[in-house]
Amino acid sequence: MNSSTKQKLDIQKAESSRIGQVDFNNLTFGSTFSDHMFECDYKDGEWQNPTIKPYGPLTISPGAKVFHYGQAVFEGMKAYKDDDGKVWLFRPEENFNRINKSSKRMAIPEFPKDIFFEALTELVKIDKEWVKKGLGNSLYIRPFVMATQVGVSASPSTEYKFMILMSPAQAYYTGDVKVEIAEHYSRSANGGVGAAKAAGNYGAQFFPTNLAREKGFQQVIWTDASKHEYLEEAGTMNVFFRVNDTLLTAPISDRILDGVTRKSVIALAKRDNITVEERPVSVSEIVEAAKNGNLKEIFGAGTAAVISPVSAFSYHDTVYDLEHQDNGFAMRFKKELMDIQHNRSEDPFGWRYEVL
Amino acid sequence: MNSSTKQKLDIQKAESSRIGQVDFNNLTFGSTFSDHMFECDYKDGEWQNPTIKPYGPLTISPGAKVFHYGQAVFEGMKAYKDDDGKVWLFRPEENFNRINKSSKRMAIPEFPKDIFFEALTELVKIDKEWVKKGLGNSLYIRPFVMATQVGVSASPSTEYKFMILMSPAQAYYTGDVKVEIAEHYSRSANGGVGAAKAAGNYGAQFFPTNLAREKGFQQVIWTDASKHEYLEEAGTMNVFFRVNDTLLTAPISDRILDGVTRKSVIALAKRDNITVEERPVSVSEIVEAAKNGNLKEIFGAGTAAVISPVSAFSYHDTVYDLEHQDNGFAMRFKKELMDIQHNRSEDPFGWRYEVL
Repeated sequence: MNSSTKQKLDIQKAESSRIGQVDFNNLTFGSTFSDHMFECDYKDGEWQNPTIKPYGPLTISPGAKVFHYGQAVFEGMKAYKDDDGKVWLFRPEENFNRINKSSKRMAIPEFPKDIFFEALTELVKIDKEWVKKGLGNSLYIRPFVMATQVGVSASPSTEYKFMILMSPAQAYYTGDVKVEIAEHYSRSANGGVGAAKAAGNYGAQFFPTNLAREKGFQQVIWTDASKHEYLEEAGTMNVFFRVNDTLLTAPISDRILDGVTRKSVIALAKRDNITVEERPVSVSEIVEAAKNGNLKEIFGAGTAAVISPVSAFSYHDTVYDLEHQDNGFAMRFKKELMDIQHNRSEDPFGWRYEVL
Repeated sequence: MNSSTKQKLDIQKAESSRIGQVDFNNLTFGSTFSDHMFECDYKDGEWQNPTIKPYGPLTISPGAKVFHYGQAVFEGMKAYKDDDGKVWLFRPEENFNRINKSSKRMAIPEFPKDIFFEALTELVKIDKEWVKKGLGNSLYIRPFVMATQVGVSASPSTEYKFMILMSPAQAYYTGDVKVEIAEHYSRSANGGVGAAKAAGNYGAQFFPTNLAREKGFQQVIWTDASKHEYLEEAGTMNVFFRVNDTLLTAPISDRILDGVTRKSVIALAKRDNITVEERPVSVSEIVEAAKNGNLKEIFGAGTAAVISPVSAFSYHDTVYDLEHQDNGFAMRFKKELMDIQHNRSEDPFGWRYEVL
């Protein structure tokens, strides 16, 4: 399916940088883009013309299949600058493998590994000034693929565009979040595309999340679509529950994203001899644990916020509060992960990837 | 949510028509577009600048949310030309209502009815030469909405583009289709977006449909995601089962599209005193009916193919053949519907809508 012929990466540099116009102390997540982007088209059965070029608009037919059939997948990753000015990625091979896994589920041709890594590292090198030092600062990287064939018949596209955009992101603390456990709406079906970072999975969450927000909750903890008995994901993150000193999280399935932060948290926990149970976690056991005081923490895990502690959850119109744990698992894993990402600690698992 | 201020429709005509380059006897469905398209943007809380303009490419940021989060919905409808040259739509109000229902589920602002109908009728009038006479010929109409705000944070867009494209479609007979009953993959979840014409619902079907095709089946009959016990939709159509002289189809739910062809078939059947049961239809009862000879027909119902008879279905690796019924329900409803659509018969339900 992939072309194995290595294609030469074409690099077209921007005439001037927009970096001077950016206030790095007041960034809105995901809304400012760096000077360059990567673009590569799939046509006639192969990925061709990999190009780094100045960030700018696309010219695309309104009949392109991405607009009509949501045949699109993406990834989220970050580049970090350490105090010596070296730039690092975090487990980029995981993102590469996952975008191809997502693509396969969405009938999109896989992208070649050599082009992915060359494009990724060259793009970060060219826009290295956009990666700022300081714990929590990063350059958010968004690889994505979209169906570009023109046609409004519901069948897989024969043409695609693979792109990488980059957006500077700030260290931020949004506060602990209040979440609502889903009792009516759901995120994904058995045999569906929940395990893929398919574009449509995210748009489908906006309406139920808006309803939760109107009630004062920032996110939804999704449950299984069949009976809403088991806890699955929190908003766009994986979710962990600490009951006494045991860490619980739903197992990977075709409904649940195989999160890089999720698997990193599990690795850190196991290294520290914390018992981790990857198994279906029922709403009833968590409610019970909340009632009897055994539920110590809930937190989301994902690339954007790293770890996001939950301060309260709602179920059957009852709100269960959780005490903030300054020295809890959430804050500890967040610090350990960020220290590894920013090259401030050892890297026992070999997760860091040096770009320059 | 809607702006109720009527906005003036701006009409920019193409300098010349491309119609001379089109071979109307060799059309590939959905790949040729008429001379004009409609475009209207949502910004600052209202739909603005409704414009009919020459069909052509869009200039759009690669950071537009539609590419990343699949926040997009669409409709499918057709215009027909009768033998006197009059042009008709079929139940357009149903499509208007449904696109707003789909939009609501995808957190997209609803579109105003007056602009929708003015744009739709003016667009068809301007490109009336693209609607060809003859039973089965039509101009396929694709209204759609996409999220255009630039930003890769997973939250509802603040900006949208509503468009209408039109594509000439031919009378075609693809033959009866062989279908596979889904036993692993699924189309939608309880509490999900299956009832919406959300873009991502369609892209998600491509991979499992490809797998079915490799085994010699053109489409998949989707079953419930929980246990694959009940029959839901066929490919991108609603599905009907005729057991002896009773017509069975799944009831509308949050998993099943409220199809215009589906509800029209039900109305025609009821008028003709055919017993219609809108209820969960189990795989086991259909397999049993196939075995004992009571299963007479299966057919899909949707705008593109109108009625699509099924010649065989596969379940548990057994293929059950169905005899083609020249005088069966499928062929009868297809003729009745097309006769109404093309103004060749009475219109007892008031389904036709005259454009010019």
